[in-house]
Amino acid sequence: MATDRKSIRGGVTAPQGFRAAAVGCGIKDASVERLDLALITSDSPVVAAATFTTNKVKAAPIRVSAMHLRKSNVQAIIANSGNANACTGPQGITDAKTMARVVARQLGILQREVMVCSTGMIGLQMPMTRIEPKIPDLVQRLSPRIANGSDVADAIITSDTRSKEVAVQIEIGGKSVRIGACAKGAGMIDPNMATMLCFITTDAAIGKAELQRAVTHSVERSFNRITIDGDMSTNDTVIVFANGASEAKRIKSGSSDAETFTKALTHVMVKLAKMIVGDGERVTKFVDVRVRGASTYHHARLVAEAVAKSSLCKCSWNGEDANWGRIMDAVGYSGAKIREEMIDIYFDGVAAARNGMAADTPVSKLRAVVKKNAFTINIELHLGEANYNVYTSDISPEYVDFNRSEYSMWKKAQIDGTADDE
Amino acid sequence: MATDRKSIRGGVTAPQGFRAAAVGCGIKDASVERLDLALITSDSPVVAAATFTTNKVKAAPIRVSAMHLRKSNVQAIIANSGNANACTGPQGITDAKTMARVVARQLGILQREVMVCSTGMIGLQMPMTRIEPKIPDLVQRLSPRIANGSDVADAIITSDTRSKEVAVQIEIGGKSVRIGACAKGAGMIDPNMATMLCFITTDAAIGKAELQRAVTHSVERSFNRITIDGDMSTNDTVIVFANGASEAKRIKSGSSDAETFTKALTHVMVKLAKMIVGDGERVTKFVDVRVRGASTYHHARLVAEAVAKSSLCKCSWNGEDANWGRIMDAVGYSGAKIREEMIDIYFDGVAAARNGMAADTPVSKLRAVVKKNAFTINIELHLGEANYNVYTSDISPEYVDFNRSEYSMWKKAQIDGTADDE
Repeated sequence: MATDRKSIRGGVTAPQGFRAAAVGCGIKDASVERLDLALITSDSPVVAAATFTTNKVKAAPIRVSAMHLRKSNVQAIIANSGNANACTGPQGITDAKTMARVVARQLGILQREVMVCSTGMIGLQMPMTRIEPKIPDLVQRLSPRIANGSDVADAIITSDTRSKEVAVQIEIGGKSVRIGACAKGAGMIDPNMATMLCFITTDAAIGKAELQRAVTHSVERSFNRITIDGDMSTNDTVIVFANGASEAKRIKSGSSDAETFTKALTHVMVKLAKMIVGDGERVTKFVDVRVRGASTYHHARLVAEAVAKSSLCKCSWNGEDANWGRIMDAVGYSGAKIREEMIDIYFDGVAAARNGMAADTPVSKLRAVVKKNAFTINIELHLGEANYNVYTSDISPEYVDFNRSEYSMWKKAQIDGTADDE
Repeated sequence: MATDRKSIRGGVTAPQGFRAAAVGCGIKDASVERLDLALITSDSPVVAAATFTTNKVKAAPIRVSAMHLRKSNVQAIIANSGNANACTGPQGITDAKTMARVVARQLGILQREVMVCSTGMIGLQMPMTRIEPKIPDLVQRLSPRIANGSDVADAIITSDTRSKEVAVQIEIGGKSVRIGACAKGAGMIDPNMATMLCFITTDAAIGKAELQRAVTHSVERSFNRITIDGDMSTNDTVIVFANGASEAKRIKSGSSDAETFTKALTHVMVKLAKMIVGDGERVTKFVDVRVRGASTYHHARLVAEAVAKSSLCKCSWNGEDANWGRIMDAVGYSGAKIREEMIDIYFDGVAAARNGMAADTPVSKLRAVVKKNAFTINIELHLGEANYNVYTSDISPEYVDFNRSEYSMWKKAQIDGTADDE
């Protein structure tokens, strides 16, 4: 059945019955004109599911959106980049609610039917005087065109170098069903989600419980398996809207249709997750760390995450250096049950270590693998049957340089911007 | 009583009855002449205590030394830099034992009375043909001179930019008792110790159980509270030798003498721990992260370690940027119980955040603190009475650059070196 899945063009407007738009408000810097405010709506009521950051410091829009999702059938998403609306206190909550209220009034729906998402700098109040006046224009521009979905993908990025869209089509009971998505990532990427927004639309007909089950399953196999810098953000959100506009039959729990749908949703999320790692801040390598033969799933995960997050391993990949000793070191401090003398390590199938010691592979052969833009590291523990993998990246001198002085810069830009406004 | 403690000149040869020496063997690179093999001995039998890495991948010398310490009264330490003798299998164990055996034969003591320590590259076999022939010369040079202790401090460093020695003198029952020490750090520094060696000598008279108690207490407050890159090494070792040569009365458990001694030992270790962080690989900032008012000690520790290890926080300090939002983010994902709206953050007493939001301090004032070489970040949780602190550093583009390609370089150097030898 999964073989019937095909990639199609576009993102959140690829499925039927969805409209989107984006405008520029100068949220980050009043002097720069770029898209930074986006809106996605469904023409009919949707079934929604979401996953939010597990960070205990939660941005205001996360608190507002989670409440709206619990209380209501939501129908629209408003999202901005350039300001996270995090650590902004009661004013931040007021501002997030205002964004929902103004959009709702324009759309003729209820405030609680609007989800709100923000990404960007932490600790600055939202420049509402720049955002509010642009909302009527934003609603005016709503359209089901593919290009409008792409505008949303553009508007939500921050330090990403490119926008990220995926869309697929599957068959449910002889009818075409589509899933479309966009995401942003780049910094603060860590297992359990990160400064990461992902909006997914589908015209499948599906119940709320079954949709949430599919979302949880897919997030666990995609966004929860990526790491760039080990920092988990205050704003991570994955939202999935299903509006049934395909007129395909309703997907029943436990059916083969449910399996087809879940596989397609996982495929979409894994593809976006890989794009996020590949486009991490100043990243030059995409590395798939695969652990096999752990005694339990938990131990496999500990090992994969320790290696994927190790600063020293990440530095060595940046230097195209097959430093397997640093991998052994990370395996050792991961907390997992291991037996040093049983561990094998391979770079794209080329043995670097066997039985916990250097394999007799010429360094040049290993180096050739690490020189590639993308490679897999297999860590074989030979203790049991449990496997796990994490998608990660190198860390570059440019990453550090890039992240040196965001706050003062942005604060200055915002103050200057606000001054211009008034 | 602690006020009677005074700093004195020197390191491991400052206390009475200890001799030391170091020679160069070209372990790392046969073409470069530098001190890389060191020996410390006591003229009389010692009481010894030690703490080893908790990494499950343990270097061969760690395994050998731990066994010797369990089975015997040890009396000497042989240590090399340039090769960690880690991930070297049965040959590594044989080589570590050979180092102990050759030293023991020269000193006229038993093999199991010699501790062995190595630090350097993981995964390369020891160049024993370069080490063994130098041991007679090493033993020949043993001397109680202060300069010989300093040679040991020089010989054990790897990527450290300077050697690290501390010595203090205290009074026990009217007699002078000395504690002398040297350490090396620089990379793979993390709570729970790191690529860190620390050798401490004292002429105090103390029982094994009391000495181990004092060592465990002091390590917990010093080396277990430092982090540079979050990687914990395979070779970490703290060894303390007490030989009673001061002829001061024996230190009894629970006595005020025990308290004086433990405080002095903690002082020595904290001083070395701070030196290690300050001399971390390409470090430009020394940061003391202090968490107060946590609901439990465990939660205080979780918060301090999350902030101290955060890549994004470390980047911002490198950029002299008071990015308190990233600190809030790390507090949030630390796993500790927190209430966002109750958190205050100070940089050297200057408020950056109050009640989880930006304080009204001008950015320039905060920036002035972060511009300093050393500063304190106070995180006040206002939930309870528990406190914890971690000493950490920034991360620099130069750190990443420095750690890009060690393995291939060293492997090549070693192969070239070996080729020269044969």
